[in-house]
Amino acid sequence: MNAEIITIGDEILIGQTIDTNSAWLGKELYEIGISVKQITSIKDAREDIIGALDLAATRAELILITGGLGPTQDDITKQVLCEYFNTELVVYPDVLEKVRSFFKSRGREMLESNNMQASLPKDCTIIPNNLGTACGMLFNKAGKIFVSMPGVPYEMKGIMVEEILPSLKLKYKLPIILHKTIITEGIGESFLAERIADWENSLIEKQIKIAYLPSPGIVKIRLSLIGQDKSKMEEIIEQKVAELKQLIPVNIFADQDITLENTLAQLLIDNAQTVSTAESCTGGNIAHLLTSISGSSNYFVGSIISYSNEIKIQELGVKKSDIETYGAVSKEVVEQMAVNVRKKMKTDYALATSGIAGPNGGSEEKPVGTVWIALAYEGGVFSKKFLFEKDRERNIQRATYAALSLLKRKICGQLV
Amino acid sequence: MNAEIITIGDEILIGQTIDTNSAWLGKELYEIGISVKQITSIKDAREDIIGALDLAATRAELILITGGLGPTQDDITKQVLCEYFNTELVVYPDVLEKVRSFFKSRGREMLESNNMQASLPKDCTIIPNNLGTACGMLFNKAGKIFVSMPGVPYEMKGIMVEEILPSLKLKYKLPIILHKTIITEGIGESFLAERIADWENSLIEKQIKIAYLPSPGIVKIRLSLIGQDKSKMEEIIEQKVAELKQLIPVNIFADQDITLENTLAQLLIDNAQTVSTAESCTGGNIAHLLTSISGSSNYFVGSIISYSNEIKIQELGVKKSDIETYGAVSKEVVEQMAVNVRKKMKTDYALATSGIAGPNGGSEEKPVGTVWIALAYEGGVFSKKFLFEKDRERNIQRATYAALSLLKRKICGQLV
Repeated sequence: MNAEIITIGDEILIGQTIDTNSAWLGKELYEIGISVKQITSIKDAREDIIGALDLAATRAELILITGGLGPTQDDITKQVLCEYFNTELVVYPDVLEKVRSFFKSRGREMLESNNMQASLPKDCTIIPNNLGTACGMLFNKAGKIFVSMPGVPYEMKGIMVEEILPSLKLKYKLPIILHKTIITEGIGESFLAERIADWENSLIEKQIKIAYLPSPGIVKIRLSLIGQDKSKMEEIIEQKVAELKQLIPVNIFADQDITLENTLAQLLIDNAQTVSTAESCTGGNIAHLLTSISGSSNYFVGSIISYSNEIKIQELGVKKSDIETYGAVSKEVVEQMAVNVRKKMKTDYALATSGIAGPNGGSEEKPVGTVWIALAYEGGVFSKKFLFEKDRERNIQRATYAALSLLKRKICGQLV
Repeated sequence: MNAEIITIGDEILIGQTIDTNSAWLGKELYEIGISVKQITSIKDAREDIIGALDLAATRAELILITGGLGPTQDDITKQVLCEYFNTELVVYPDVLEKVRSFFKSRGREMLESNNMQASLPKDCTIIPNNLGTACGMLFNKAGKIFVSMPGVPYEMKGIMVEEILPSLKLKYKLPIILHKTIITEGIGESFLAERIADWENSLIEKQIKIAYLPSPGIVKIRLSLIGQDKSKMEEIIEQKVAELKQLIPVNIFADQDITLENTLAQLLIDNAQTVSTAESCTGGNIAHLLTSISGSSNYFVGSIISYSNEIKIQELGVKKSDIETYGAVSKEVVEQMAVNVRKKMKTDYALATSGIAGPNGGSEEKPVGTVWIALAYEGGVFSKKFLFEKDRERNIQRATYAALSLLKRKICGQLV
């Protein structure tokens, strides 16, 4: 079964909003065996919407539409859908009641414009939105299904998870698509491909497709297999993953598509261990990622962000003479940061960073992108110098991932 | 002039990668007066690529293509472009030389697969890529321009900024599109629209288009005006912005499309003032945003992330009895955090947060989403309780923005 996604909104075309809805929808559909053939983003304009609907219906059986359902004047999707499906807007009293109680339960005043949210196409199936006031709408036309949903990501997700995905799974006999993602860290795409070339070639006879997905500091390897016999397929994929793990044990961060911080959180919780951080160039980003996970108070205690040298000395007990002799971006300083924050926070591990994130502040000896990272643990400290890039954002991200990776390797006995 | 963007890659369709290239391209083109009519994302599949190129050429004069140019086996864009433009791949010796020196200058080994990067279509204009090994390619067909670029965002951006955008500006007489974005904070979309309804209606006679762009904690208002007389147009827009500022002075965070942290950085630098943070529920995210900006050491000194109560007591001098009496999420505790971190870090301002980010940990008295935020300054401390949502990620983000907003209001004399 093929699907297409249409996202509507001027703000997407002029780049003021990044379309994250499509990625989420693509992923959810893929997991239940529905293939997304195309994603189309268009303006809040009548002809563009009608043209996109027409073309999508020639290629796919399911068309998911997001955006343009808000209470403000620039949102025209509902009117255009009425024209396309040859119907008209009518007030749904039960929806109006729900909109009213939505505002009431939140102690918010109901505005005139919010009444409009209960005006919906006469001939369509209304899909409840429990997280907002813009309902979903489902239309059938010439055997194709069209679903229109609000563009606010969490409202759209609510409608999909509660209504659309369950009913798709019930209604259609979908093929089985198995996919497996392995996350690698600390090795570039070309090197990785070269290193696992023979293994990659061995995938062909198993009809497994492979894709490399690089992002700063990380390369994801995605394996895909289509078939009918799920347990047989799982066995084939698992065999190949086991082979890959033997080839690049240290570089594999996770054998599923989760974030580095989630992997690490799980490891720390499983081992009942704790971590703290002392951050200079990463400015709190390691702590932010570690605390982005529900339950993080089980393994995370606190951090000291020591951006200035004074705070490194005062809060982390770094020796002033060492900063003067070796500079703040040095093995000596970063190791003291890690060891001392671990002592202060009484944690099993402590991560510390000190580097030149850029774009300014580099020197010949220590160019922009130079980052020292240290990991303190019971009985010792390990540190390593990295040379990343010229871009500030990428350097902060890569340093953060490299720090998380050091800790993962230590916990897994891979730190050498 | 109309443009279309085509992004190629299975990983986009199955949602493993969010397409951020299109938003960036859309924004850059919009700023030089080129309107993006459609963004299309398709798989690494021959027929889909050819179909998308054909259709885009019926609607637009400029077609920008990203993705599918990597050295791995799943990248087929170059081959398909050769077929579509009726040409063949040949080795460009000067490109090969450049690829070799690219690896050499970075001290990295050159791999067999990297040689492929010098195989490029015979009949096209090669566009240098100074940040990677996959060149851009420019084709002309029936009066339409097609540009193919790598999918790695910073390489694509390099090619656009250095080559494509300058040559488009030179070659075409483009209409003037003025756009102005005002960032509001602390007021929901519906309320905002109701509050400024008369002002919004007054835009029509000036032919100004308006759009509301909501995201957690923020609503952007975007005004657009197309014309020829730039200074006249600027005058019209500025007049309307001035009127809006009178209507909602406190809620306007910035009168340009920059981030909250950038606005605040500029204010702090202009006033030669400094800030520190003591973060519990935001877990370092405020510090992370404040240090994401180049030059942040001018105004940011450090932070203490006190996730556990012990660290709140030990590092921030919060009274143990107050935590026991009022709880960690309380006015008493958050004010002590702010006042004491300001003292420790010797900064002009200090922000502190303590809340229940969720999804667990709430109570009837303090439900998930309850966040206390405090701002300490010379001679005093201000604190406020917020009730955000159920979603952890959104709560962290909204608390971070609310904290930045408090500081902005204080600096601007709007804190009441």
